Amino acid sequence: MEQTAIKGAASQVSRAMRAVTLYIRAEQLRVGDSLPGEAHFADQLHVSRAVMREAFGALAALKVLDVGNGRRARVGAIDGSVFATSLDHGINTAQISLPDVWEVRQTIEHRTAMLAAVNRTPPQAAEIVRLAEMLALEKNDLDQITRDDIALHNAVAIASHNSLYVQIVASFGPLMEVAVPAAWRTRRTEAERAAMVGHHRALARAIADMDEEAAGAAMTRHFDTSIGDVMKAMAERQAIPLAQ
Amino acid sequence: MEQTAIKGAASQVSRAMRAVTLYIRAEQLRVGDSLPGEAHFADQLHVSRAVMREAFGALAALKVLDVGNGRRARVGAIDGSVFATSLDHGINTAQISLPDVWEVRQTIEHRTAMLAAVNRTPPQAAEIVRLAEMLALEKNDLDQITRDDIALHNAVAIASHNSLYVQIVASFGPLMEVAVPAAWRTRRTEAERAAMVGHHRALARAIADMDEEAAGAAMTRHFDTSIGDVMKAMAERQAIPLAQ
Repeated sequence: MEQTAIKGAASQVSRAMRAVTLYIRAEQLRVGDSLPGEAHFADQLHVSRAVMREAFGALAALKVLDVGNGRRARVGAIDGSVFATSLDHGINTAQISLPDVWEVRQTIEHRTAMLAAVNRTPPQAAEIVRLAEMLALEKNDLDQITRDDIALHNAVAIASHNSLYVQIVASFGPLMEVAVPAAWRTRRTEAERAAMVGHHRALARAIADMDEEAAGAAMTRHFDTSIGDVMKAMAERQAIPLAQ
Repeated sequence: MEQTAIKGAASQVSRAMRAVTLYIRAEQLRVGDSLPGEAHFADQLHVSRAVMREAFGALAALKVLDVGNGRRARVGAIDGSVFATSLDHGINTAQISLPDVWEVRQTIEHRTAMLAAVNRTPPQAAEIVRLAEMLALEKNDLDQITRDDIALHNAVAIASHNSLYVQIVASFGPLMEVAVPAAWRTRRTEAERAAMVGHHRALARAIADMDEEAAGAAMTRHFDTSIGDVMKAMAERQAIPLAQ
C-alpha cells in the first residue's frame, strides 16, 4: 500500500512537470518570462503544494525553470550544463567510455568547423584568430591555455550559428578542464607544442578565410594529433583525460 | 537578508549535489548500486534534511539517482531522457530551431551509420534488416511505421557500439514521434513512399554488408530526401515536424 502511494506521488510529480512544460509551450513563453506560482498550478491540477514544489524543483534541476533568488519562477535558459551533468554521470559510472566521448566530439567539432567557415561573422572570425594567437603565445600558464582552448572550441561552435551545437560543445567544457592540462603536459618538446599551436592557427585561418574544407581538415588533424597525447597521458598518469 | 538566505540555500543544495556525485565517483558505484540515505549525507555535510531532500530530488530529475518506489536511492541509468527534456525545452522556447536539430541529427546519424557498418554484430545487422523490411511492408499504419522508424534509427546507433551516440539518438525519439507521421503524410504517391523505403533498405543492406561508405551515403540520402518532405509538411500544415 505504501509502495503504491509513493508510486502515485511520483506519477503526480511527473504529471505536474508535464503540465508546466505544456503551459510554457501553450503560452509561447521565452527565456526570462515569469510563470504563475506553485499555488496556482496546485489548484489547477488538484495536487498538493508539496507535489508542485517537487515538480518545480525537478524542472529547475533540468534548467527548464529558473527559481533562484526567491522570486517568481521564470523560464530557464539552456546552457549545456544539463548535458554536461548527464555526460559526467555517464562517465563516472562507466555507462559511457572516454573514447566514446572523444569520437562524438570529433564528429561534432569537425562539422562545427566547416559550418563556422561558412557562417562566421567578421567579429567571430577575429575572435577565433585572437584565441588561436593567445594559445600560440601563452606557452607556460596551463590554466590560461586551458581557458583559451575551451574558449576557442566554444567560439567555433558559436560561429557555426547552430545553437544545439553550441549547447553540446559547451557541455564538453568540464571534461576539457581536466583533459587539456593532462594532454598538454605530455607535449614536452618545442616541436610537439608547435604542432598543436599550428593546428589551432590553421583552423582559425581557414575559418577566417571561409575555407570550409580546410577548416574541417584542420579540426580533424587537431583531434587526430591530440588523441595520441591523450593516450600518452593515460599511460603516464593512469588518469584518462579527454581531449582538447 | 531573505535574498541572501535563499541564495545560501541554493548554494547549499548545489554543494550537497556535488557531494553525492563525488561519493558515486569515489566509491566507483555502478548503475543500480544503492547509496546511503539523505540522513547520512545531511550529517556528513552539516546541512538540513530539507536541503538534502532537495539535492536528492534534483539528482533524480537529472537521472543521476533513481529514488522511485520508496526504497533506498540507487545510482541512475542514463537513458536519453535528460537530453530529450533539454532539447524539447530549447525548441518550445525558441532557444533551438528545428533546422538546427535536423543538422545535428544528420551529422550524428551519418556517423552512426558508418560505425554500425564496421561494428555491428550479426544479430544487430539482422535486426536492422528486419526493421527496414517492416517499414517496406507496413504501408498504412502510421503508428507502426513511426515506431519502426524510431526503432531503426536507435538500432543503428546501438550497432555503432558507442553509448553516447545511443543516448543522443534516443533523445531525438520524442521529436520523431511528431515528425515521422507528418513527413510520411506528405508522401502521397507510391513512388515517393517507395523512395523512402528504398533508402531504409539500402542503409540496412550496407550495414549488413559492412560497407562503411555505402552506409554513410544511404543515411545522407535518407536525410536529404526527408528534409524536402519536412519542408512540404511545414508549408501544408503550418506545423514543423522534425525528420524521420
